[in-house]
Amino acid sequence: MILIGERINGGFKDIQRAVGEKDKTILKKWAKRQTEAGADYLDVNIGAVSNKVEDFLWMIETVQETVETPISIDCNKVEFIKKALEICKKEPLINSTTAHDGKLEEIIPLAVKYGASLIGVCMDEAGSPKDANKRVELAAKIFTAAIEKGLPPEKLFLDPVVMPLKFLQPQASHILEAIRQFKLLSDPPPHIVVGLSNISSQTTEISLINRTFLTMAIEAGLNAAICDVTDTDLVNAAITTELIQNKHIYSDSFLKAYLATKVKT
Amino acid sequence: MILIGERINGGFKDIQRAVGEKDKTILKKWAKRQTEAGADYLDVNIGAVSNKVEDFLWMIETVQETVETPISIDCNKVEFIKKALEICKKEPLINSTTAHDGKLEEIIPLAVKYGASLIGVCMDEAGSPKDANKRVELAAKIFTAAIEKGLPPEKLFLDPVVMPLKFLQPQASHILEAIRQFKLLSDPPPHIVVGLSNISSQTTEISLINRTFLTMAIEAGLNAAICDVTDTDLVNAAITTELIQNKHIYSDSFLKAYLATKVKT
Repeated sequence: MILIGERINGGFKDIQRAVGEKDKTILKKWAKRQTEAGADYLDVNIGAVSNKVEDFLWMIETVQETVETPISIDCNKVEFIKKALEICKKEPLINSTTAHDGKLEEIIPLAVKYGASLIGVCMDEAGSPKDANKRVELAAKIFTAAIEKGLPPEKLFLDPVVMPLKFLQPQASHILEAIRQFKLLSDPPPHIVVGLSNISSQTTEISLINRTFLTMAIEAGLNAAICDVTDTDLVNAAITTELIQNKHIYSDSFLKAYLATKVKT
Repeated sequence: MILIGERINGGFKDIQRAVGEKDKTILKKWAKRQTEAGADYLDVNIGAVSNKVEDFLWMIETVQETVETPISIDCNKVEFIKKALEICKKEPLINSTTAHDGKLEEIIPLAVKYGASLIGVCMDEAGSPKDANKRVELAAKIFTAAIEKGLPPEKLFLDPVVMPLKFLQPQASHILEAIRQFKLLSDPPPHIVVGLSNISSQTTEISLINRTFLTMAIEAGLNAAICDVTDTDLVNAAITTELIQNKHIYSDSFLKAYLATKVKT
């Protein structure tokens, strides 16, 4: 399971303040905490805090001063992504391209040039997909474009677009069905990733809904998630799901054993 | 989701003592607690405490004095099942028949005569199944025998036989695959049930493994479980899995709302 820590995001008040005041402490704290919790990538998103690329680069540099965990460059501005790619010390993840032709043309060659991995979000000009079929159609389009432009399939992460259960309840089943079908796109299958926290948006049971959906999605074929890696119950659910799938060998300390193989601050 | 409370079982020390001393208090406590937690049936199993049918009937009567929840008659002695069927006030569940010809011949007609539901465990003379195919073969045999002998399909619960993750780790995937295939036996599909706690037997993370496997099994098609219904995390996981499947409508109080529709002590 590839865990992408969601917490260094300008949408959170403490990050917003940290960027505004150039206070490295908060960013360093979350870089360290998420890495210790097992994050494989740390997502960095400046949100609406600033539109200066220097501020975005400052965030990435602050994280890189603290931990060696690769960066997930979470931004929809191509210029920001380019500058970020230049300073990343470890091979990063670009979050993201959509299935929009112009986006694919611009972003895939950048990923290839820098040896980065890439999240392909199954949205296009028409907006968010409404069913499994549309998700699969867009996933196939992204997958084909990536292969054609020379991105190795193992560097592609397909994202079926998770929608809030509270407002679009029937979508959850479509997303799980899409994941099952994404698995059939190639052998070995591409990585499949979700922005997990969307599923529980504005609900009263955030952690419970996140971990239950994560278990269902892993069973469907998911192998990566942008999520709250500091939610121990969530990470334990992911590890246990993979244990039941026979992907790790059972030992009485299987939870600790799994993290021990990952965490190197 | 049909929840069958596992706790009134001679395998537990307090039940063993209660039966030995004819102390109704303990049985009444578990009958009430499990019913309040949402049990649809209360499993009653005398275990190795006594081989007197009167003791088994005393257990059932004690439960029936306390709550109106139907009984799951958990016993492999036909004579005990017969006597129990005579005293059950609500339509019970017989737990269980195997796919053994002699068993099917004896138990199915009893279920039909008393209007009881029946668990068909996918084992035969050769013992426990080792893969999904064998489970499906035995499920089909039980299903066919039930229909031929006049048991309505909605009264049949097929059990794929859960094995301990700690000792037979690859079996979990076979069991999930078997559940997916059981669903295809008829339309609407038969009930599918597991003895959940087996999965976590002798592990260090009983509740975590139980609830994670339960979520995966419900997503595969399970709709009933013999389990620790007093484990709130477990029941919440089951409710949330069905919520994600769009089987209940989301409300901020969806956990309470679900139990409110079930619990009538």
